[in-house]
Amino acid sequence: MLRSVIGRQWRCSATFQWCAMFQPFGGEVGKTGMSTATTTRTSQAHEQQQQQEIHKIDEEVSRLLALKAKLGGDAPVNQKFTLKTPKGTRDYAPQQMTLRQGVLDKIVQVFKRHGGEAIDTPVFELKEVLTGKYGEDSKLIYDLKDQGGEILSMRYDLTVPLARYLAMNKISSIKRYHIAKVYRRDNPAMTRGRYREFYQCDFDIAGTYDPMIADAECVKIVAEILDTLDLGEYVIKLNHRQLLDGMFEACGVPADNFRAICSAVDKLDKSPWEDVRKEMVEEKGLDGSTADKIGEYVRLSGGTELVEKLLADPKLKAVPNAVKGLEGMQLLLKYCSLLGLEKAISFDLSLARGLDYYTGVIYECVLKTEPPLSLPTTPIKTSAQNGGEQQEQQGGGGIVGSVAGGGRYDNLVGMFDPRGKAVPCVGVSIGVERIFSVLEAKFAASKVKLRTNDVEVYVASAHKGLHEQRLRVLNQLWQAGVKAEHSYKLNPKLLAQLQHCEENQIPLAIILGDAELSQGVVKLREVVTRQEASIKLDELAEEIIKRRAKD
Amino acid sequence: MLRSVIGRQWRCSATFQWCAMFQPFGGEVGKTGMSTATTTRTSQAHEQQQQQEIHKIDEEVSRLLALKAKLGGDAPVNQKFTLKTPKGTRDYAPQQMTLRQGVLDKIVQVFKRHGGEAIDTPVFELKEVLTGKYGEDSKLIYDLKDQGGEILSMRYDLTVPLARYLAMNKISSIKRYHIAKVYRRDNPAMTRGRYREFYQCDFDIAGTYDPMIADAECVKIVAEILDTLDLGEYVIKLNHRQLLDGMFEACGVPADNFRAICSAVDKLDKSPWEDVRKEMVEEKGLDGSTADKIGEYVRLSGGTELVEKLLADPKLKAVPNAVKGLEGMQLLLKYCSLLGLEKAISFDLSLARGLDYYTGVIYECVLKTEPPLSLPTTPIKTSAQNGGEQQEQQGGGGIVGSVAGGGRYDNLVGMFDPRGKAVPCVGVSIGVERIFSVLEAKFAASKVKLRTNDVEVYVASAHKGLHEQRLRVLNQLWQAGVKAEHSYKLNPKLLAQLQHCEENQIPLAIILGDAELSQGVVKLREVVTRQEASIKLDELAEEIIKRRAKD
Repeated sequence: MLRSVIGRQWRCSATFQWCAMFQPFGGEVGKTGMSTATTTRTSQAHEQQQQQEIHKIDEEVSRLLALKAKLGGDAPVNQKFTLKTPKGTRDYAPQQMTLRQGVLDKIVQVFKRHGGEAIDTPVFELKEVLTGKYGEDSKLIYDLKDQGGEILSMRYDLTVPLARYLAMNKISSIKRYHIAKVYRRDNPAMTRGRYREFYQCDFDIAGTYDPMIADAECVKIVAEILDTLDLGEYVIKLNHRQLLDGMFEACGVPADNFRAICSAVDKLDKSPWEDVRKEMVEEKGLDGSTADKIGEYVRLSGGTELVEKLLADPKLKAVPNAVKGLEGMQLLLKYCSLLGLEKAISFDLSLARGLDYYTGVIYECVLKTEPPLSLPTTPIKTSAQNGGEQQEQQGGGGIVGSVAGGGRYDNLVGMFDPRGKAVPCVGVSIGVERIFSVLEAKFAASKVKLRTNDVEVYVASAHKGLHEQRLRVLNQLWQAGVKAEHSYKLNPKLLAQLQHCEENQIPLAIILGDAELSQGVVKLREVVTRQEASIKLDELAEEIIKRRAKD
Repeated sequence: MLRSVIGRQWRCSATFQWCAMFQPFGGEVGKTGMSTATTTRTSQAHEQQQQQEIHKIDEEVSRLLALKAKLGGDAPVNQKFTLKTPKGTRDYAPQQMTLRQGVLDKIVQVFKRHGGEAIDTPVFELKEVLTGKYGEDSKLIYDLKDQGGEILSMRYDLTVPLARYLAMNKISSIKRYHIAKVYRRDNPAMTRGRYREFYQCDFDIAGTYDPMIADAECVKIVAEILDTLDLGEYVIKLNHRQLLDGMFEACGVPADNFRAICSAVDKLDKSPWEDVRKEMVEEKGLDGSTADKIGEYVRLSGGTELVEKLLADPKLKAVPNAVKGLEGMQLLLKYCSLLGLEKAISFDLSLARGLDYYTGVIYECVLKTEPPLSLPTTPIKTSAQNGGEQQEQQGGGGIVGSVAGGGRYDNLVGMFDPRGKAVPCVGVSIGVERIFSVLEAKFAASKVKLRTNDVEVYVASAHKGLHEQRLRVLNQLWQAGVKAEHSYKLNPKLLAQLQHCEENQIPLAIILGDAELSQGVVKLREVVTRQEASIKLDELAEEIIKRRAKD
């Protein structure tokens, strides 16, 4: 057994070699590592299928190797071909981190403008905390191995941990934001920003308040974030779960089928009505004429005039849930208008949201203009460079989908409270991975190189034997809070040092030389203009701080 | 089966009730939820043992419940008594987040001052990436459940993921920092800042450079961070793995026993020499006289004078590894002195570091003054409020241990490279959890309440019916970038609104009233001084920004 596994490992030591053994992939395999800009849609689909098969092989190999590792104990080995991040995850290189930090800073600024406080929770929860909260999607939860002790699962979102946190600490009101990674064993589509490990940025308002005031503020927050990130035109779709339920009732859907039909409606953003109708009738056993009635409603979108029209609709008027939902929408639209949001929002009856726990208003924000994602995007070094993940990096027409979503969930906290005490909540989640994808593509197209360090000055040697002098000067600069670096070589070439400054966009260089040092001065050089000035050694930090202030 | 499990759940619905059924815990159990400030050491040990047993029961209960959840499918239930975070983890409440963010910001500032770039990696890796990297500690790695697909484990540190990242992307030089959570199934001791989920803040310099220049900068970084965080006196202990190996050789330790003896020496910071000697002789089969020779050396610490003394030591002089290690130390101490670190460092032969992968310099920074951790610390709301974790929150005399550590590891990246290409690395890791613990205790003692929001102005109603006006004013403020909030109630009481400002340390309040509004003005009130001024409605944002600039 052991021998056969090791034999396999040897054969696998390069992915291409292994794959070449299979006829179906043949000469195509090499291509997956390159740009497919010129590849047509049809051959893309073909390739995707192939790559899915390759992926299955990769996964099988991983499993065998894990088995091998188990058999062979902890002996260090060179893990040649598994040099990859787990499926659906990626590393962030410095450029991506810079971009990401810029986005997150702007989002946090908006959250703080609305009085948000930060919290954090563990990345995993007791498994049963997550049980029964996500409906059909529960199968996507990552579980930890039972290694003795508690049974744990990775968090699937930040909403359920918030509800657990509020119930556990008996907090009845908070305005909190939480920016952290969540985990879903979903089918990744990485150019479109769909990962298995991804960031969520959530803002939620918990507390017993008057209707729609907090709900409207969440819409405002989404609009402010989209405005500040400058991603182009967007629309925030609004709907109400109570109205949906009322509408289903009015159309004659049996009550125990509401959630299933709701989750079919949720697919309208990706599928045409015909497909959704088919699902309702064929999979979910709905009467064809009932489905058609729903079809009439879910095609509607608009503003307050639509609310009024629906309030006058005889079928809806007869259903208390529908009337309550519509009255809620009316109030929400009024508050949104007071907050200057009229042009950003659309009351949209096709909006349903997947998750079970919503009880009131639901939101979803989509970009109106197609971001330039149909381009092959390999701008910045990513984990896409290794073999395993390319298939998800390609294909797809660049539909970014929603960049924010949320809603009201008044019963979730109560599910955790021993006495069932409810804490009403409403919140939004910003889809930052999708936003990162859009911005990465933008940057790739612009060919702008982001600066990934903050160094203000580079301390260079003009000739040999000055490394101790450099350390003295650096110490002086660091003590003064100046961001400074140098070469870690004893005798670096001057040209190499100045090139480093240019490549890393460091604005200033200090050049040490014996002649100047004997007079107690150094050369201070502006890297871009190449202008040089003589500065006294003991005024150096001061001079740099002065120049920094001018920028 | 199902019935018996559910029966148990009912009995467990309160931890105390369940525990009360066991004689050994009896009346003691209630105590664990309270302060033990007055409890003596002996009874503490007794209590600890009891609590360990309670914990086992808690864990068993969790397992049974997970089984139940499995049997019962996904039906939502109220998880009454498992309202806790997983063992060894905690939530961060807003006050803790504020403290934490303050610490991390200062650390990042230092990292950036030295030219660091940020990266991030996934929270889990393919299991085999971690295999064979941590020696004895590998048993503490969290594994994910095999749900089909790849076999994954949670990262144990940030160093191995960095090595994997460098090898995978063929990066031969980088100066990177990484701040992220890592996971160890260790025995938690939470008041002392030892968790199963905890933050690491790592700075590493990768690249082929001249000896000790990068190594000395890492020492400088630790010193700058400790200085900026103002945690009291500290010492950075320095040693060299080559010297340790040379010393073991000189004392007559067989080469295949070096790592085992090294890991025994590593315990000298917690155990007296007698215990360590016993481990060497009884567990690791070392000759008593060999152990005694080691004992002579590991008691030594000092500066350059000690290096010179050891270079003259006849036994060490004969061993090339020892001489190389000592020459390295000599160079490091010289560079440290040029960087103004003479008083912060100590060459300490007892420093060994646990991890296998170090090949050169090793560091460890310890606080000299005992932080006030023997006090019962329940300052800020923590997960300690729930039953399961108290036992680790108490006991122990407040030994914070090391707050930073690291070293040189020249062979780790090569373990991932298909051709074994090495990328020499040196780095440090800041033990922020321990630092948070020290600061939390400090804050608890000072009774200062940290502000957890940034709100500049609260928009209040003086009487009923002004909520629409409030929204208009808020919209105006938010558009101008002012951080503002209000009550989510239609008609809040004025007193309640002003109290909210005081409790949340919001500096300004706008008070809307019909009388003022009819003249186009509002009252702007300084919350602390209660001074009020009449401000024109359309100059409000401007006025607040002006006041903000003055602070």
